[in-house]
Amino acid sequence: MTPRTVAPDTRTRLLETALELFTTHGVEGTSLQMIADALGVTKAAVYYHFKTKDEITEAVAEPALRRLGTIVQEAGLLRRRGAQVDHVLAGIVDMVVEHRALAAVYSSDPGVARALERSLHDEENVKDCLTELLVGPDQDPAAAVAAHVALSGIALAGGSPELADVPDEELRRHLLEAGRRLLGRPRRPPA
Amino acid sequence: MTPRTVAPDTRTRLLETALELFTTHGVEGTSLQMIADALGVTKAAVYYHFKTKDEITEAVAEPALRRLGTIVQEAGLLRRRGAQVDHVLAGIVDMVVEHRALAAVYSSDPGVARALERSLHDEENVKDCLTELLVGPDQDPAAAVAAHVALSGIALAGGSPELADVPDEELRRHLLEAGRRLLGRPRRPPA
Repeated sequence: MTPRTVAPDTRTRLLETALELFTTHGVEGTSLQMIADALGVTKAAVYYHFKTKDEITEAVAEPALRRLGTIVQEAGLLRRRGAQVDHVLAGIVDMVVEHRALAAVYSSDPGVARALERSLHDEENVKDCLTELLVGPDQDPAAAVAAHVALSGIALAGGSPELADVPDEELRRHLLEAGRRLLGRPRRPPA
Repeated sequence: MTPRTVAPDTRTRLLETALELFTTHGVEGTSLQMIADALGVTKAAVYYHFKTKDEITEAVAEPALRRLGTIVQEAGLLRRRGAQVDHVLAGIVDMVVEHRALAAVYSSDPGVARALERSLHDEENVKDCLTELLVGPDQDPAAAVAAHVALSGIALAGGSPELADVPDEELRRHLLEAGRRLLGRPRRPPA
């Protein structure tokens, strides 16, 4: 028995299963018991890793949130506004495409949004930072509306079941183009 | 006692209260008892109007859904593609701005989305019709992605608490401009 190497696997499976259930039933419609049943383990085995559903919700989102934090930091080091916008936009599109199921759940579930707001309370609010980077220092309402349409639209379109057949690379290209149009960035020359 | 004239008022108040509670707690986090408490009536009084929360959810959304249905019908009567896109876009933006709180709840709550899908099951699916009108007959993936970003983005930005300070007329103008950019429509000359 080597619990040190077994435990991380169970944790990973647990988070994958939780995300699948969240996708189908929403976070508020998913119980720890449902997660345990889907994994074929006891509720106590789930409790061994996570005490509450909020902890699971945060852990499922954690890699994506960490990635968003990195994007914000990197963009902050760039000098030109346009380069900042390009970096944030490309980073968000990459993240949404890589985590399509997660994007669907986390952008459309108020239970998740609330859980994340609690977990982000003492840290920098990543979503506010992303919006600020896209809106720019002038806080122009037209730019603010465009930034909100871009962030919400990219996240929801990326997780949309009606676009599930669009291959990742194509989805990435079209989301990026939509974001660039919205934010008034010039079209990129084809790579 | 004139219950025939009193009843509609209670029903209207009930739906307004339900929407407020949905905004704060999400649909899944709102119970019939909470609605009754907020109205200062008994749960039986709520039951007099609605037997289930799904019925309330549908009734809250009904005026907006009926409006969307009208937009789809009107757009179908227009001959030119561009005119159809313009009509759908303007109609959606108008509706979102008029029902900002509703837009926030109905675009971000999976419980609502599921309830509406059930209620729309036997009717024409308005959201599919809107998307089809925006995407066009070619079903081009780039156009499909742009249409999804536009529909989701406008709905969520319109209901976003961070944009709550933007006056209706300004929000309407900026949402329309964002949608027109996304869908490749020429900028309107200032009216």
